[in-house]
Amino acid sequence: MSTNVELVSSARCFQSSINVYSHDSEELQCKMKFGVILPDQAKESKLPVLYWLSGLTCTEQNFLTKSAAHKAACDNGVIIVCPDTSPRGCNVEGEEDSWDFGTGAGFYLDATEEKWKKHYRMYSYIVKEFPKIISANFPVIPGKQSIFGHSMGGHGAITIALKNPGMFKSLSAFSPISNPINGPWGKKAFTGYLGPNQESWRCYDATELAKNYDGDEIELLVDQGAADPYLKDELLLPNFCNACNNNKKVKLTYREHVGYDHGFYFIATFIEDHIKYHARYLK
Amino acid sequence: MSTNVELVSSARCFQSSINVYSHDSEELQCKMKFGVILPDQAKESKLPVLYWLSGLTCTEQNFLTKSAAHKAACDNGVIIVCPDTSPRGCNVEGEEDSWDFGTGAGFYLDATEEKWKKHYRMYSYIVKEFPKIISANFPVIPGKQSIFGHSMGGHGAITIALKNPGMFKSLSAFSPISNPINGPWGKKAFTGYLGPNQESWRCYDATELAKNYDGDEIELLVDQGAADPYLKDELLLPNFCNACNNNKKVKLTYREHVGYDHGFYFIATFIEDHIKYHARYLK
Repeated sequence: MSTNVELVSSARCFQSSINVYSHDSEELQCKMKFGVILPDQAKESKLPVLYWLSGLTCTEQNFLTKSAAHKAACDNGVIIVCPDTSPRGCNVEGEEDSWDFGTGAGFYLDATEEKWKKHYRMYSYIVKEFPKIISANFPVIPGKQSIFGHSMGGHGAITIALKNPGMFKSLSAFSPISNPINGPWGKKAFTGYLGPNQESWRCYDATELAKNYDGDEIELLVDQGAADPYLKDELLLPNFCNACNNNKKVKLTYREHVGYDHGFYFIATFIEDHIKYHARYLK
Repeated sequence: MSTNVELVSSARCFQSSINVYSHDSEELQCKMKFGVILPDQAKESKLPVLYWLSGLTCTEQNFLTKSAAHKAACDNGVIIVCPDTSPRGCNVEGEEDSWDFGTGAGFYLDATEEKWKKHYRMYSYIVKEFPKIISANFPVIPGKQSIFGHSMGGHGAITIALKNPGMFKSLSAFSPISNPINGPWGKKAFTGYLGPNQESWRCYDATELAKNYDGDEIELLVDQGAADPYLKDELLLPNFCNACNNNKKVKLTYREHVGYDHGFYFIATFIEDHIKYHARYLK
């Protein structure tokens, strides 16, 4: 596997560089972009790394431009890396037809259906390939890594952390899709990528994974907007909270914020909290 | 003139609402949108208002989503309003042909050329109509208003403030186009909107206006990225700085920042400084 990356763009922001790179992904069999918030401290010493997973329709750009995470990344001395949300330009028939399936909607799983299984391997990309790309190219402290994400990326962060105990020092999410096997977005995506056998869906469902988690005790922070229009039918946080409350190995701090919706203005409001939360585990 | 506005969208961010409105503009003869960062303090008392003018290609969205101004607006108790950068959808032949002329590129002037003069009246829109819309619909303190902007919007803020002494309590800009009559963007736009007679261009040129300014003493803060690719040929800050240095009524604080470019990451880095700067004059 080549860990070569190419710099696509770079801009200075606070005391950091905000860089975008491309690389040839072996898992996804296509060229992928990703973003990095690289604090100047990285010139002096290795830093912890925080993986951000974005939601439906996003590229590597949305978090960089809209989350206002730059200052907190500098203040807390963490490198933040944000991969794209699906393979790009693979010419799989139908991949551009929906905003919630295919391009921009990889759901952080490895597809098993014939049509999708060659390229749509975002789970293996995030768990296996992307960390190697990061550690080969940036001054990160081995093992000092945490993960967070939003919506589909919150689902990704939670499922990946629960499926890989010990891989991340800490875990948090904004407005995660937390029980996709019971929501319309999840049912559509899982049917498409994994086929009709719902048994195979459970290993990518945050609520099912929280019920059955048996690794070392894990803490997680979830922030949710109470005015989020997707809360009731798509995110299904109550199911996830119940599962966590019934498994003493999963220590959930769940905060619901009156008035906030599902978008980046909500993320921007609480992003500093999340970065500080992770920094405590990463020091 | 109707001062009716319609709410298009609203989202909570920090302790504020980030709202977008539309209204029928009499000056521009079209429907216009604008953004407002409305801190919760506005429910209790009237607040000062800060006008933000955006640059080429922007709509009302760019500043709202990318500037990270929300927290500082709340902390300093100022309402920030951001109009669009040109009339929209007027079907003037050729208005969609260039990114630096026509739609998204109104240059904050009143066109005199036949083809453009009906709709392209951004100067009168910002100076006369928009403030009435704001004061009729939001709890602003009469007279407590300041102005700032970026690139083409920095040009707009400086020219509008220098042409209207006393209208604003304070003035600042990021990376302003500061001598458009001598740069390619400005020459193209001024030729198109104002015709070939360059004498008519001077009343919209920040450097010419700074040379000849004779109102009450005015201070302004300008932040500029030293790695801005447009600095040398388009923005022409040295000409503007010279003009200010030669007119003791214009007190310029000019800061050039190593490594920063022309984009919103640069704005986000120094936006809090600018909001605090204006808040001192607005209290």
